[in-house]
Amino acid sequence: MVGAGQLARMGWQAAISLDLGLICLGSTGDAAARAGAPLLEGSGRDAAAVAELAARCDVLTFEHELVDLAMLRGLQARGVPVRPSADVLALAVDKLHQRRTLSEITGVDVPAFAPVSEPSDIQTFAERHGWPLVLKARSGGYDGRGVWMCADAEEAMVALAESRAAGLELYVEQAVEIVAELAVLVARSPSGRLAVYPAVETFQVDGMCRWVVMPGRFGDRVAARAVELAGTLAERVGLEGLMAIELFLAPGERLLVNELALRTHNTGHLHTEASDTSQFEQHLRAVLDLPLGTTTPRTPAAAMVNVVGPPDGSDPASRLADALAVPGACVHLYGKAARPGRKLGHVTVCAATPEAALESAREAADRLERHE
Amino acid sequence: MVGAGQLARMGWQAAISLDLGLICLGSTGDAAARAGAPLLEGSGRDAAAVAELAARCDVLTFEHELVDLAMLRGLQARGVPVRPSADVLALAVDKLHQRRTLSEITGVDVPAFAPVSEPSDIQTFAERHGWPLVLKARSGGYDGRGVWMCADAEEAMVALAESRAAGLELYVEQAVEIVAELAVLVARSPSGRLAVYPAVETFQVDGMCRWVVMPGRFGDRVAARAVELAGTLAERVGLEGLMAIELFLAPGERLLVNELALRTHNTGHLHTEASDTSQFEQHLRAVLDLPLGTTTPRTPAAAMVNVVGPPDGSDPASRLADALAVPGACVHLYGKAARPGRKLGHVTVCAATPEAALESAREAADRLERHE
Repeated sequence: MVGAGQLARMGWQAAISLDLGLICLGSTGDAAARAGAPLLEGSGRDAAAVAELAARCDVLTFEHELVDLAMLRGLQARGVPVRPSADVLALAVDKLHQRRTLSEITGVDVPAFAPVSEPSDIQTFAERHGWPLVLKARSGGYDGRGVWMCADAEEAMVALAESRAAGLELYVEQAVEIVAELAVLVARSPSGRLAVYPAVETFQVDGMCRWVVMPGRFGDRVAARAVELAGTLAERVGLEGLMAIELFLAPGERLLVNELALRTHNTGHLHTEASDTSQFEQHLRAVLDLPLGTTTPRTPAAAMVNVVGPPDGSDPASRLADALAVPGACVHLYGKAARPGRKLGHVTVCAATPEAALESAREAADRLERHE
Repeated sequence: MVGAGQLARMGWQAAISLDLGLICLGSTGDAAARAGAPLLEGSGRDAAAVAELAARCDVLTFEHELVDLAMLRGLQARGVPVRPSADVLALAVDKLHQRRTLSEITGVDVPAFAPVSEPSDIQTFAERHGWPLVLKARSGGYDGRGVWMCADAEEAMVALAESRAAGLELYVEQAVEIVAELAVLVARSPSGRLAVYPAVETFQVDGMCRWVVMPGRFGDRVAARAVELAGTLAERVGLEGLMAIELFLAPGERLLVNELALRTHNTGHLHTEASDTSQFEQHLRAVLDLPLGTTTPRTPAAAMVNVVGPPDGSDPASRLADALAVPGACVHLYGKAARPGRKLGHVTVCAATPEAALESAREAADRLERHE
């Protein structure tokens, strides 16, 4: 597995249960290494390190999208099973490419978009689709980074200057009116087995996922459409592995794809407690072409709340006991150094209703972050 | 943690979630070490190794009862928190002492028993309680080892000779008519917090646990009495940590204590999937005096079936894909070398009824063991 952060750490926990020989590419201080996962020191951008990892493994897979596609194509050409394949990973590496690909699939709706190479491209787009609009970095963005919501031309020019200074290529997107945000996880194996998790409702603050509930308030019909869409997309892109699909629900039950991630995803953490198969185990099953696990929820409802480093720089782990006192709280700490705004863990609660689950999960997360 | 077998391995998985610094005392080939748990090389019988482990930890706890109580008392006298304490561990180390202690607690029923120092002790006991009777080793027995069911005096003399040749001290016990076997897990923290898991029904073959279901067929009234008994026992013995209580249900709803284990236990594996708190996390919470976790089941029913090395010596792990094809099967492999009769893993299934859960869990375990 290229990467050794918290997703690889939880992947390692899943690998232990099946006694699978996961090796992570990263640094000794990373979350997965702290969990005892076998580590190859290095970066996913380093061709020699990735080649060495591939030589030691049966299958190469990924915890993040910071990869060199040309290098991966070279490995594939030499017969290394790269899952998902470089062509599929390209969808996550270049979001403009993702938008273009998705917009060409019948039955898949995406916000209007256009490439941006000069300021007039934004103006032209705005004349057609109006303000506000969204500028997005083609690559490298996550957790709200690389996204600029622009109310007018002046804000757009500031964002453009900022992104150019950072060396980012941009595209422009329509700001869709959002009724709710959803996410669906889908696994597909090389032999074509398919498993889709139930759709969850997600809540972002400043572009970073803050909490997730299941079932969402969007109703069974929308949930079923999201699940169907996930299956279609997995087939169409030729997924081998796990894919998270973030969706916007717009007025009139319009369902638009916001973004794909070709890996385990923050919006899928609650399946660890709420389903028979965690997304981490499912990812390993999929890339190893093992049968996929059941995705039916075990519980009527569940919620997950992220634990983020508080502004005072204190470590939520120091308040673990307070959080564990919340009934039903399943706490996950990633073993990362505390910094304000950094994702350091999450709490999942299973309950009879999404409201009850969310209330308890927020209570535990608040205690870790020491919100009063 | 003294010990590094599969229980420590699953303890390590739980420690990762809470980012706790678990160190196991054992060998590099042990199950916990294979899961990446930090390891101190050595044996729980080796005073120097245990002292070194204690020096590196805030709290000393245990995965097995193969410990030197005098050494532990020495550590306690020097202020090392030993949880459970040496006095409590003594109940598991010497089963005759356990029987005597339990028989002195009001409201606790145990089979009639007597120490055996010479053959006539067995004869005297048989005259009073009849045949068959059970000879048991005072210490060192597990999974059916150290237990002899004797139909008559001749069999008893053979067992006595065998056990003496092995250097074992014995006691004799009444063979109780068993309607069902139950187990209950209870956690108690140093500050007196108490959490009891629901009673499960257990099935043994040749003295080794083969499967467990929840809820059992013994009904709510018996289940409630078992839970109450577990709480009483934890308080009375002054438990700090986790204790498993194996019980016999005899005719007339008579509930007798069969055996105590002062650690996580095979009969508690299903709580990992079926409850908000696994026994492994609960054990860590208890010995660290953290709040205890919720023990309410998340699912109507669950079953756990052990995976035992088949007679042909083949490795169940080689048939993992077959087992994962069983819907709902949560497979745990321990990463141990395959040997006939050795516990190598287990499968848990959550379902609407104990029958459905058991059927699926057995199917997956059978596939791993390659039973046709």
